[in-house]
Amino acid sequence: MRVVVVGAGLAGCLFAMLLAKRGARVTLFERNPDPRPPEGRAGSSSSINLTLVERGFAALAAAGLRDQVRAISVPVNGRCIHVDRHDQEYQPYGNPGEALRSVSRATLNKLLLDAAARTPGVELRFGQRCIELDVEQGRLVFESAANGTRYAHTADLIVGADGARSTVRLALQRRHGVNFSQLYSRHTNKELRIPAEYARRAGLANDALHVWPRGDLMLLGFPNVDGDITCTLQLPSTDSPTSFAAIRTERGLLRLFEEHFADALPLIPDLVRDFFDHPEIPMVTIRCEPWSCARVTLIGDAAHAVWPAYGQGANAAFETCTILDACLARNGSDLRKALAEYEQLRRPDTNAIADLSERHFTELRSHLRDPRFLLRKRIERRVRSLFPEQRSLYERIAFTVTPYAEAIRQDVQFRRVVDAICASDELCADVEGAALERFIRAHFATASEEHASA
Amino acid sequence: MRVVVVGAGLAGCLFAMLLAKRGARVTLFERNPDPRPPEGRAGSSSSINLTLVERGFAALAAAGLRDQVRAISVPVNGRCIHVDRHDQEYQPYGNPGEALRSVSRATLNKLLLDAAARTPGVELRFGQRCIELDVEQGRLVFESAANGTRYAHTADLIVGADGARSTVRLALQRRHGVNFSQLYSRHTNKELRIPAEYARRAGLANDALHVWPRGDLMLLGFPNVDGDITCTLQLPSTDSPTSFAAIRTERGLLRLFEEHFADALPLIPDLVRDFFDHPEIPMVTIRCEPWSCARVTLIGDAAHAVWPAYGQGANAAFETCTILDACLARNGSDLRKALAEYEQLRRPDTNAIADLSERHFTELRSHLRDPRFLLRKRIERRVRSLFPEQRSLYERIAFTVTPYAEAIRQDVQFRRVVDAICASDELCADVEGAALERFIRAHFATASEEHASA
Repeated sequence: MRVVVVGAGLAGCLFAMLLAKRGARVTLFERNPDPRPPEGRAGSSSSINLTLVERGFAALAAAGLRDQVRAISVPVNGRCIHVDRHDQEYQPYGNPGEALRSVSRATLNKLLLDAAARTPGVELRFGQRCIELDVEQGRLVFESAANGTRYAHTADLIVGADGARSTVRLALQRRHGVNFSQLYSRHTNKELRIPAEYARRAGLANDALHVWPRGDLMLLGFPNVDGDITCTLQLPSTDSPTSFAAIRTERGLLRLFEEHFADALPLIPDLVRDFFDHPEIPMVTIRCEPWSCARVTLIGDAAHAVWPAYGQGANAAFETCTILDACLARNGSDLRKALAEYEQLRRPDTNAIADLSERHFTELRSHLRDPRFLLRKRIERRVRSLFPEQRSLYERIAFTVTPYAEAIRQDVQFRRVVDAICASDELCADVEGAALERFIRAHFATASEEHASA
Repeated sequence: MRVVVVGAGLAGCLFAMLLAKRGARVTLFERNPDPRPPEGRAGSSSSINLTLVERGFAALAAAGLRDQVRAISVPVNGRCIHVDRHDQEYQPYGNPGEALRSVSRATLNKLLLDAAARTPGVELRFGQRCIELDVEQGRLVFESAANGTRYAHTADLIVGADGARSTVRLALQRRHGVNFSQLYSRHTNKELRIPAEYARRAGLANDALHVWPRGDLMLLGFPNVDGDITCTLQLPSTDSPTSFAAIRTERGLLRLFEEHFADALPLIPDLVRDFFDHPEIPMVTIRCEPWSCARVTLIGDAAHAVWPAYGQGANAAFETCTILDACLARNGSDLRKALAEYEQLRRPDTNAIADLSERHFTELRSHLRDPRFLLRKRIERRVRSLFPEQRSLYERIAFTVTPYAEAIRQDVQFRRVVDAICASDELCADVEGAALERFIRAHFATASEEHASA
């Protein structure tokens, strides 16, 4: 089968490899120049660092890349909440040994490009921009960056892996009957950097995600292999005195940091230069139904971009690759059936993570400082200590490969007991106490009976 | 001010006239050929007949066109529900004398084109397709159908009036920060025709909207000046044995009509030819926020296409024209402020009618046959007979120019009393009786007291 993949990002590269391993001839088109040395430039309009979890690694393992990717990442065992300029609170993500893995997107993409280039059956073509797609005919038109030449290309299967602002999807979404929406957060992001030596001197943990939650503002710090901490400053884009639009001078910027991120300020030496230089990176949720037609389909952000608050964008994209690959393998030459199955299987879960990512957005920037939120987290850990299989929704999503929608369903029982405990001042007063343990055990005993008799 | 309007449909023509009347120089670009005689062809991918109400006429009046448009329309005083092959029930829309006006879209569009062409300051250019828009620069590129030539055009204000699948909007919606969605109904429409003599012989009222509600299927008939009844057959597009996709033979089509629309079947002589010839017309809701940027904005379906169930698409489009015109007039040369005000004023109401149109869709095709729905309508009429100012939501929207969102708010009190009556078997048993009158009067007396003391 001849396959065209448009976009050599994370999903495009992985999918190309998976298909080529099963004998397809895959041409991977990328509009940008080759980012790898000797001439490669960094820079992308997407998130800079990302955290991979088992969901993503399981998919990478299908292409034999688990260990290689692990090697370019660092473990993130928990969140270090910078509550104010003096105090921090550490919240482990999961059980001891469970960690996210923080990795630079650019480094990851280059690793995937190298791996794809080495895979028999995969051909990479850089500097080729898709400008047109005739969905009915399965015919693309590309424009070569080098000389502006345009040429047509057809294939048995065309996969749009060209991101949230996908050109391939544009051809699909302009067709009658395609329900589509794009929802932007009012916040955008800018990249900043805490160099390794500054982080070390300040004693910042290099195995934690650093968070400065300040309500409508937030600063995040992702650790790197080299010890740098890549920061994301998240502000409203406009319509606020603390928006990117409102901060126009060095003085205004420093004042913002002195007020809200005072402990981070001395750690970011290039703050002023980078703030005014770097672009605002938006966050958008993409929902598209259907996302296939004839021999054209979508994967990754092109199909299901999500807000980054739940850290699932890349993980979901990798997972999508394995699901589409499996649907194609199962259905042989019946492409229509394969793509129908792909959508039917995948969409409930991408819808679920899209909704969850939007809901979690507010929690991440606000509730983390809320004493009630912190108390709830302690209660959750107590429940887990007694019933280790009872994971929080975050843990189910981060540390298992349970499909997103199913994870949400499983969460209901867990939330019920935590809600009940939170509602009791008496129980909350002694989270480590015997009374709470009795309450928890009784709750699950009852729940088991109900489940058995249902 | 030099203005470009892209799209010479209903909204584009009216808006061009309103602006030219205040001294602007307006160029109205239309991709299709001139539809007016001698060479004009009918045919459009939009609804074929539409019903205008005061909301639309008030806007047309601003361009001095109320009487001209009235003259090409026929009054529609109520719905004639074809309950089954034998029985019909008539439901007046409003008070005696209140009527919708049914008009052919093609005839209306030609009237508006003639009026626009006669308006000093308006220039019409047919066969010119907008293929590109640089929003920042305010620069359009058009392609001439006659010879394929491309040329650029700039203006002080660029208005996209190019429909639900707007090219102008596409340039806006691909920008960061634009929240956009398109939602298609699973149903589509096909045009059929009951010729005037058939309608007369069958005794079909020519001052009613004829409705054959059959659950997942529906047939609608709109009266015309010449006595023809333009029918809309509404079926699911696919995924149903009674979908357009499933009806592939003359036999299958006739069987569908014999089963569901038996009394209409003998009245549509060209049924088979037209069914298999005519295209499926989809229904889509467009939500776009913002719909302006720099000197570019949108009106009509391009900004706020709605499902046709509430009959407000064209009416809302005409109303939008007057609102944008007023915002521009109020703000003189401050275009940014004018467009910001336009969006702020208009969007709550277009959101409201979009939601309402989607909700009403199901009611129109199903509940009309439901005895409880018919009873509710009788109760509503009884309430109105006692308190004429208490209109149903439909009446507020159809027979007043109350902004959509406000009409929905006013509806709450009316619904409360009708809900209360419907909940009482005793009251429902005698809708014309004295007990119900006492109940209604008491309800409004209490409501007045609550209102006064609030």
